[in-house]
Amino acid sequence: MQKLVSFTKRRGFIFPSSEIYGGFGSCYDYGPLGVEMKRNIKNSWWNEMTRIQKDVVGLDASILMSPKVWEASGHLTAGFADELVDCKKCHHRFRKDFLEEAGGKCPDCGGELTKPRKFNLMMKTFVGPVEDESSATYLRAETCQGIYTNFKNVLQSMRMKIPFGIAQIGKAFRNEINPKDFIFRTREFEQMEMQWFCDPKTTDKFFEYWLKQRLNWYYKLGISKKNLRTYEVPKKDLAHYAKRAVDIEYKFPFGWKEIEGIHNRGDWDLSNHAKNSGEDLKYEGYYPHIIETSVGADRSFFAFLAEAYQEIKGGRNEEGESNKEMEVHFNIHRSLAPLKVAVLPLVKNKPEIVKKAKKIYETLKTEFATVYDQTGSIGRRYRRLDEVGCIFAVTIDFDTLENDEVTVRNRDTMKQERVKIENLAECLRKQL
Amino acid sequence: MQKLVSFTKRRGFIFPSSEIYGGFGSCYDYGPLGVEMKRNIKNSWWNEMTRIQKDVVGLDASILMSPKVWEASGHLTAGFADELVDCKKCHHRFRKDFLEEAGGKCPDCGGELTKPRKFNLMMKTFVGPVEDESSATYLRAETCQGIYTNFKNVLQSMRMKIPFGIAQIGKAFRNEINPKDFIFRTREFEQMEMQWFCDPKTTDKFFEYWLKQRLNWYYKLGISKKNLRTYEVPKKDLAHYAKRAVDIEYKFPFGWKEIEGIHNRGDWDLSNHAKNSGEDLKYEGYYPHIIETSVGADRSFFAFLAEAYQEIKGGRNEEGESNKEMEVHFNIHRSLAPLKVAVLPLVKNKPEIVKKAKKIYETLKTEFATVYDQTGSIGRRYRRLDEVGCIFAVTIDFDTLENDEVTVRNRDTMKQERVKIENLAECLRKQL
Repeated sequence: MQKLVSFTKRRGFIFPSSEIYGGFGSCYDYGPLGVEMKRNIKNSWWNEMTRIQKDVVGLDASILMSPKVWEASGHLTAGFADELVDCKKCHHRFRKDFLEEAGGKCPDCGGELTKPRKFNLMMKTFVGPVEDESSATYLRAETCQGIYTNFKNVLQSMRMKIPFGIAQIGKAFRNEINPKDFIFRTREFEQMEMQWFCDPKTTDKFFEYWLKQRLNWYYKLGISKKNLRTYEVPKKDLAHYAKRAVDIEYKFPFGWKEIEGIHNRGDWDLSNHAKNSGEDLKYEGYYPHIIETSVGADRSFFAFLAEAYQEIKGGRNEEGESNKEMEVHFNIHRSLAPLKVAVLPLVKNKPEIVKKAKKIYETLKTEFATVYDQTGSIGRRYRRLDEVGCIFAVTIDFDTLENDEVTVRNRDTMKQERVKIENLAECLRKQL
Repeated sequence: MQKLVSFTKRRGFIFPSSEIYGGFGSCYDYGPLGVEMKRNIKNSWWNEMTRIQKDVVGLDASILMSPKVWEASGHLTAGFADELVDCKKCHHRFRKDFLEEAGGKCPDCGGELTKPRKFNLMMKTFVGPVEDESSATYLRAETCQGIYTNFKNVLQSMRMKIPFGIAQIGKAFRNEINPKDFIFRTREFEQMEMQWFCDPKTTDKFFEYWLKQRLNWYYKLGISKKNLRTYEVPKKDLAHYAKRAVDIEYKFPFGWKEIEGIHNRGDWDLSNHAKNSGEDLKYEGYYPHIIETSVGADRSFFAFLAEAYQEIKGGRNEEGESNKEMEVHFNIHRSLAPLKVAVLPLVKNKPEIVKKAKKIYETLKTEFATVYDQTGSIGRRYRRLDEVGCIFAVTIDFDTLENDEVTVRNRDTMKQERVKIENLAECLRKQL
């Protein structure tokens, strides 16, 4: 785990937020490679849901919503709360369920603990000039509520027919008392949610359908079967809105953890919003039931990261020498890789080679995520690229000046082929 | 203006947030067509900045940051505040600068007004279990601070050299007292910002360069020159951090308004963060100066929307009849259009035609934003598509059953050509 955290910072994937001020809470920033990889994940999910799947349209609702939404959804009541206990001596505060092993004493100082009390997870803010309860609202704790409140708007404006889905990607916030495990449990996080509205008689069928589709998405993007499993949430542990829940779990360095939930939410959401708002949210006389697929974008990022990260001892190097140092290989799926192409002049002190390399770089970079690197031996540069999972390395050498051919090295096959410069873009495009 | 608002709701571009609960503040949700169009705008900007331009890398920082960031940036002091006055009679509150025409009286009831007092625009929230000032932080009021605090991290992890830029897209929040003009001035909004770090001697050159590049981006995407202008902000009106500012203004239905700002921020940001954090943020012994390009994503969406929306009286219809009703044409640039292709069976009561149309739809939709529409006459369907700017309409008719050719209608040229089904995807791909 510590290696992963250090790797992501060193290579520009993830930085602690506000780091120059000593960091802040559990907030993280995605660096230049991280943002590209996260965009690739989000685009892949969006493409899967709104293009490859049938009858799913998109939405992008605001983070700030009317507090009435959260009253109706049940988030402002006891259901969406953690039980907290205080230490009477050092006054530190803990989530009750994290204390099971501590034997009823403060884990920090051994002091006596108070009785547990409920603590709501919604993050409050104030809208307008007066800072009081009448102007209070909340940062959304889940993106799906923006989908439910727009159910009728989408139905009408897009002339949809049941069954159909609405997909959304966006930030949500929960005031976690014990954020932990790097980007796994954070107060600010991003969700990729799809809500499928259907006839109550079809929920079981669609539950199975979407569970299968979602598992396949991870497999397609390189998650191995041995690291992914499903967990049927027992009835007694179901959230207040759920009739059935299956977690998709990934085997993280710190154990099996949920990265996505498939939920049968029944008619909880539409019937409650109808009751509370007075709007008719029925479709042909009934409340559509909802199957939800809810991915943590940061958690899935973390899973793809952990899956791709490999340390290899004694790999061969490009000069054929045996290599005794530990090497990092980042075997990220090519569609998720933050860098697709690197352009490398064999040497940096031969102006014709550098000039040609820069020209090729300028052409490729407008189409692919491309870097230019002229520092260090070719073997060293290859290793730097393998470390971040760059798919292709294009080397411009002395022969290039004669025959306009470059060497294209493929990260996965380690094969190198000579390609005419005029065919280079097309060659890369085909393989990507 | 009212027509635009009503159009965006009716056709699934923009809905008022929490509408079933009577709406909320100035928050808006992007509907199925709106989210596709906004994604296209954001992707176009990202592509422009990180692919087409040189030496710009991306970042995605968190919305929640350490409050120390906002102390250093000057946002918690008087500089980032509105002057408010209260009505002594009806107790309504107003921004002082909005009252200039009201002659010192309450615009709502004519009552006497209080003296102005400062009101900070940062939106507060609380992190952790205790809701007091020690746990207070703020929703970021601008995305750029996450770039400055990561300057060193990006420099080191990506081995950048000055000059270089960092681009970011993300939400920001300001507690506007008078949000207004639809999605133009809202409390929650999205920014697309690029910060260019350079040698102090080069700031004038780069200011001109980026201003020109940014204007060209709008022109490329179909904004006409007559609707775009620049405004040199007078010295006395400059923000506390700015040495020079040029606004890019669009001619909205409610007048010329800023959609983007180009700012010379000097060394304000890095030197202040260095001073406040104790970190060395110099590069080779000096603080790089910053040229910023800051787009309001929602404002630019609004500008593209207003530019594309056209009402045409008495247009010809497809049956050749003269058309007396007002028609809406949405001439959005093809790269921004939320729908690229529509698949239309000529009639819906001929199963072979419907089957063929659905098959074509299933194929195209995985690659392009595609709709299927079989309701109403072809002329009526074309008009519905023109209204949302769909680029191509593919009609499957009786001849298709004989020769496997479909009619492809181009929104812009109104030309129709017959294309073999096997060549259809390639034909559309080329033109898009």
